[in-house]
Amino acid sequence: MMSAWQVTADGDPQDVLEPSEVARRELPPAPKPRSPILHPSSPVPLAEIGAWHDEADVLIVGYGGAGACAAIESAAAGADTLVLERASGGGGTTAMAAGHIYLGGGTRVQKACGYEDSAENLLRYLEASADDSDPEKFRLYAEGSVAHFEWLVSLGVPFNDSIHEARTNMQQTDECLIWSGNEKAWPFCELATPAPRGHKVAREGEAGPLLFAKLHESALAAGARIQNDTRVLTLVIDEKGGVAGLVARQDGEDRAFRARRGVILCAGGYAMDEAMFRRHIPRLAGRVMAIGNPYDDGAGLRMGLAARGAGIHLADYHITLPFYPPASLTFGIFVNAQGQRFVAEDAYHGRIGELASRQPEGRVYLIVDEPSYGRPEIDGFELAATEESIADLERALDLPEFGLQQTVDYYNRHAERGQDPLLRKQPHWLRPIKDAPFAALECSLGKAPYMAFSLGGLWTKPSGEVLTEDGEVVEGLYAAGRNSCGIARSAEGYASGTCIGDATFFGRLAGRAAASRSARSE
Amino acid sequence: MMSAWQVTADGDPQDVLEPSEVARRELPPAPKPRSPILHPSSPVPLAEIGAWHDEADVLIVGYGGAGACAAIESAAAGADTLVLERASGGGGTTAMAAGHIYLGGGTRVQKACGYEDSAENLLRYLEASADDSDPEKFRLYAEGSVAHFEWLVSLGVPFNDSIHEARTNMQQTDECLIWSGNEKAWPFCELATPAPRGHKVAREGEAGPLLFAKLHESALAAGARIQNDTRVLTLVIDEKGGVAGLVARQDGEDRAFRARRGVILCAGGYAMDEAMFRRHIPRLAGRVMAIGNPYDDGAGLRMGLAARGAGIHLADYHITLPFYPPASLTFGIFVNAQGQRFVAEDAYHGRIGELASRQPEGRVYLIVDEPSYGRPEIDGFELAATEESIADLERALDLPEFGLQQTVDYYNRHAERGQDPLLRKQPHWLRPIKDAPFAALECSLGKAPYMAFSLGGLWTKPSGEVLTEDGEVVEGLYAAGRNSCGIARSAEGYASGTCIGDATFFGRLAGRAAASRSARSE
Repeated sequence: MMSAWQVTADGDPQDVLEPSEVARRELPPAPKPRSPILHPSSPVPLAEIGAWHDEADVLIVGYGGAGACAAIESAAAGADTLVLERASGGGGTTAMAAGHIYLGGGTRVQKACGYEDSAENLLRYLEASADDSDPEKFRLYAEGSVAHFEWLVSLGVPFNDSIHEARTNMQQTDECLIWSGNEKAWPFCELATPAPRGHKVAREGEAGPLLFAKLHESALAAGARIQNDTRVLTLVIDEKGGVAGLVARQDGEDRAFRARRGVILCAGGYAMDEAMFRRHIPRLAGRVMAIGNPYDDGAGLRMGLAARGAGIHLADYHITLPFYPPASLTFGIFVNAQGQRFVAEDAYHGRIGELASRQPEGRVYLIVDEPSYGRPEIDGFELAATEESIADLERALDLPEFGLQQTVDYYNRHAERGQDPLLRKQPHWLRPIKDAPFAALECSLGKAPYMAFSLGGLWTKPSGEVLTEDGEVVEGLYAAGRNSCGIARSAEGYASGTCIGDATFFGRLAGRAAASRSARSE
Repeated sequence: MMSAWQVTADGDPQDVLEPSEVARRELPPAPKPRSPILHPSSPVPLAEIGAWHDEADVLIVGYGGAGACAAIESAAAGADTLVLERASGGGGTTAMAAGHIYLGGGTRVQKACGYEDSAENLLRYLEASADDSDPEKFRLYAEGSVAHFEWLVSLGVPFNDSIHEARTNMQQTDECLIWSGNEKAWPFCELATPAPRGHKVAREGEAGPLLFAKLHESALAAGARIQNDTRVLTLVIDEKGGVAGLVARQDGEDRAFRARRGVILCAGGYAMDEAMFRRHIPRLAGRVMAIGNPYDDGAGLRMGLAARGAGIHLADYHITLPFYPPASLTFGIFVNAQGQRFVAEDAYHGRIGELASRQPEGRVYLIVDEPSYGRPEIDGFELAATEESIADLERALDLPEFGLQQTVDYYNRHAERGQDPLLRKQPHWLRPIKDAPFAALECSLGKAPYMAFSLGGLWTKPSGEVLTEDGEVVEGLYAAGRNSCGIARSAEGYASGTCIGDATFFGRLAGRAAASRSARSE
């Protein structure tokens, strides 16, 4: 059930992480008995700690994109910084990714490629993408996006001044910009001026490992200590509930580490933990593949929750229906069990995945004619039917009589004129569906290769400080990346590169904030 | 912003609670600065408690349906039981309700009215109503439903052997049974044999006060102590994280109460807390009226979360679009911004509310012709348009051209034959929409009087024991009613009476479990 992805014993992050395959785990059908509990994450009282094995100003739990950026800033601010990572090398899910970072507001690459963007425009887009914007985080991200890009460049992260225009979810080239969200699709295109914002690190294939290698170099250069093969088990809390350190298993021993200033949780999402996935996203459990690295098991999140941190958006996720490439399928139409359309087909595959997964009974087909037909390049899409007429296709799919015919007639009549009054697919992708044979790709939930990961996490201030349900700070506790809830919080609005953008940006803020906190007095 | 509903200083629960009006609070538009924090709910370490003001075997926080049933069972089992309630009288949201309890499996009333039901059939229905059944809770509820009915009868709660057949959400009569969920609507009608299961306590108007009065009598008779005007502030935890008692404000003082066996949180949902509503249900915040009693502010839930309890389904809720009575509106069709239907109009108003609220842009109209027209009896529904033809109505509503016409034509063509191939509204409610004038009732989110309350809560075992994210029991802590997540956990599947059914049933189990726990040794 766990994927083929394995952590090796080698310490070099570029070698440790196999970038070629995204780890996937198929969840079994619900319901099942819960797994035995191996690692309770409830905090240990400070009074029970006999002696500290080691200490630092700032302890960072997890060494992916968020943890590395937190370490760089914390160490650069002069704090003694110690990173503890379970795997034998760093990288986390960041180093498994294609290496896109969602940035805008007028970066060097956007300008070189001739695209106008601004902080205000980026903010409008981000706000349109969430039903619950965190005003301060969204504003900071929009205003700080260009500077964050420049900071990455200053660490040696390379970006080419080029754009990859194809509609794809698996860019293999080393061009930089892609349209990685819903920028050109309705209604987003009317709410903010479209601009491409996925910035890929300059490397062919998956560029996540190169991104992480540069972050790793900088963390070491800044003086951060990194300890691998170290599994953090629990936080240590003082009599007031503040975080004073943690307990980790290292070299076969449970060891206590003291945090003079703070602990930053950067240990990733919970998609790979079957029980948490089922508990918080039951609608999708057993019907999608969870994606992430094997250690995206929510351990850091559970520790934070048990230390009084509030969990927000825990039921939110990114889901994808990766039906393109080939982009020509965008000329098709998605229909539900009523034979009705429900989404502009030129939207991002994540938005389409979410809306498709919510159709009645989860039943969805992609209808195309011969000139547009192609098989998605991701395995797992089946052909539900092919017929010589739409009427026959309707019968073959057992759709309500005349339902699909009526939908296709209506679509064609307007597509001829370059219009989509129903859902406003943009004119570029409008073409009547009229040349037999006609095909229906199976896109139903549970049958098509939907993939998902968690977006929810601890409720944090932009500084990474963790808040309780009362809105009070848990003293000494910070979170970033998918241990926190960041700017990515809605399946309908997600864009590729948002998680790495958020993790690196707010990881930095957390590192700085923890480093500048007053040291504990004991 | 708070409603007209007020807690009086009088101690009699029948008088204290004004049953005539459900409390409503309109949330202001997002985003806003968060409110100042008045009552942090983080637990107090046992070591900080100097002296106990009082003690009991079982302490119960909150005296609504769940708390009263917990008190009855705990006291009946011989445990010294003390209930602490913030208001000047008991009742909670239970005493504000119409007084329906969702029960089945073959109750005395079901049999008397000629309806077949069984535990297996009830279980099938409950499972169909949730995307995440808690197998053990669902089974216990289905198997124990008849006995729970008999237990209520044994306490003197009266039920008439009669049925109220009208499709309504505001039964004023003293008949017992109503169809309070989706039993007769597709797809539920194919998954379980339809049976009416809303059991109304025998009283005209709101029967919740009578129900609560009977529970109150029994709690007193069993020997439970009830203390009103007592606001529980925090739990007290021992060095292992187990719950040892609580701190409450009483007579102007903060007093510590020791729990020898356990604390049961029964303090209601969080719908009336603006910050929690916005944090956990952001999609609906500012667009619906929150319903509950003013103390449904999540205080008990926050205490449980801060004591390491896991929150599940926190983003789930019951939402209603109370468009009937008049039932004749069920002959109409709901359409979205695409002019498409999306739900069988004979479903329960909660299911319709949920699906309507999720349509693109939240835009929804109810289309009816003259013979079916009527104004919903709940204030706040506006007429979006009336026209002499569907084509004119389509233009007046600014729907895509021919979209509504096509939908109505299709619907009428099949309704003539008593069929609804698209969404399977049952034949009883099928009638062509053909006699001018035609009306469109405004049912869009933010414009129609949608109402909602929270369903999520602490993750509990059927015994009420609270679990952490690791699945471990928080020693000494129990929850019931809307401080826990029970059998009601899905907006699409909710049925009236489920919350009171769940609260009273699992409140009893929690009372019994806490009473039988070994006493703490200190």
